[in-house]
Amino acid sequence: MKSEDFKNRDKEKLSIVKIGGNIVDNPEELDKFLADFNSLEGLKVLIHGGGAIASKMSDQLGIETRKVDGRRITDAETLKLVTMVYAGLINKNIVASLQKLGCNAIGLSGADANTIPSVRRSPEPIDFGFVGDPDPQKVNKSFISLLVENDVIPVFCAITHDGDGMLLNTNADTIAYTVATALSEKYKTVLYYCFEKEGVLMDVNDPDSLIETINPDECDNLIQQGVIADGMIPKLFNSFNAISQGVSEVKILHAKNLLTGKGTVLS
Amino acid sequence: MKSEDFKNRDKEKLSIVKIGGNIVDNPEELDKFLADFNSLEGLKVLIHGGGAIASKMSDQLGIETRKVDGRRITDAETLKLVTMVYAGLINKNIVASLQKLGCNAIGLSGADANTIPSVRRSPEPIDFGFVGDPDPQKVNKSFISLLVENDVIPVFCAITHDGDGMLLNTNADTIAYTVATALSEKYKTVLYYCFEKEGVLMDVNDPDSLIETINPDECDNLIQQGVIADGMIPKLFNSFNAISQGVSEVKILHAKNLLTGKGTVLS
Repeated sequence: MKSEDFKNRDKEKLSIVKIGGNIVDNPEELDKFLADFNSLEGLKVLIHGGGAIASKMSDQLGIETRKVDGRRITDAETLKLVTMVYAGLINKNIVASLQKLGCNAIGLSGADANTIPSVRRSPEPIDFGFVGDPDPQKVNKSFISLLVENDVIPVFCAITHDGDGMLLNTNADTIAYTVATALSEKYKTVLYYCFEKEGVLMDVNDPDSLIETINPDECDNLIQQGVIADGMIPKLFNSFNAISQGVSEVKILHAKNLLTGKGTVLS
Repeated sequence: MKSEDFKNRDKEKLSIVKIGGNIVDNPEELDKFLADFNSLEGLKVLIHGGGAIASKMSDQLGIETRKVDGRRITDAETLKLVTMVYAGLINKNIVASLQKLGCNAIGLSGADANTIPSVRRSPEPIDFGFVGDPDPQKVNKSFISLLVENDVIPVFCAITHDGDGMLLNTNADTIAYTVATALSEKYKTVLYYCFEKEGVLMDVNDPDSLIETINPDECDNLIQQGVIADGMIPKLFNSFNAISQGVSEVKILHAKNLLTGKGTVLS
């Protein structure tokens, strides 16, 4: 028995499930996913990404998307927009859908009950605007525990706050990592990154090229070879961080495979 | 000692404070009000109205405001808009501001933890669209109690749900009445309707014409005389309903007078 297994043996399992924006954008796939999430046994938490709705709304409102080095900047107008779309429209509709299924969901931003405080990212070298990076040490673990142990299922959107009155846009994968890490002291936490691909793929266009397990060394090699790129890099970075900080298991998988668990297992 | 006083004598006080949209629209007045709300002693709940931000956003998005008999209709596009603005933008900014003050606020719609289920209003005689009327009997009292007794302050926006996956636009005064009534079995509930006037006025343009106390008979007379009109009528209707259903006290007052309590006392 490994020492980690020993430490976790008496802990209750807690599933931290992150669902990507591309699934959130598709009502049919989202409904199917939420039904599976509802069927997932044991204590659980959901984190949802943003989706394309915010960009569409941004165009309608005439808010210009500013980018630096290909990365979006969250200016004051964009912060308002994502607060409306993520914490309002998407979050509350997911909560209402889960309630319909009999799942007692509660929608939260990181500001609510100070669940996920964050620190505004330094403007150097790039000023990303109103973007926050959360610290697992600061998560309101006792409140999240109070909810899950009263059969109330937290549903987080990717908005946090700095504790000084400012809301901050935050990467949803990072929120999932942060919550999973923070709660791993008390629970045997399993982190699921659900999205629109089968997992980590050798060829991003071939769903049959699934990499079933991956460790940090293999990951480094594949990044250097250019096999792993773009949004998958921070997802894997968050995943390995989670494991090194006490999360029991991390899986990257297609949303449709949440219940079977078929996907890439990080180790 | 009246029988109501006797029943309430061992109960802990719970303040249910509703803040009107006109105050929400004014950042300076809102900040001052939130500081006062934070200073209010004992268990408490906040309910906030919508404000003019939704109408402004509605124009920007090109959503037409439909009215029947001078009353707004919540069509599908308007429901999206109010969900974004009330549950997202306004609710989360109020929560972040309260957190800054050290008040452990949590923002909620009625869908969250099924706190305030409602029934979609019948389309006869007027179809108001996606509008819900809540029932105090259905409120998730145990969850709201769990929050306030753990020093977490619920902040409700005026969105509820039908339990069948549909969010519903709901009058914020009615939400305040519903929560106060539902919790009056367990707590000595005091309901404060805070807005931009001194209270119920004999002359709506004269702040010195405050009616200090009012009972249902006096109210009927003043409505017949045309002294009380418009939005004040449902506010008073909700207030007298609340008192007849166990709420200890209802006050209608200017937001700046929350701590002194100066305003109209219902009896």
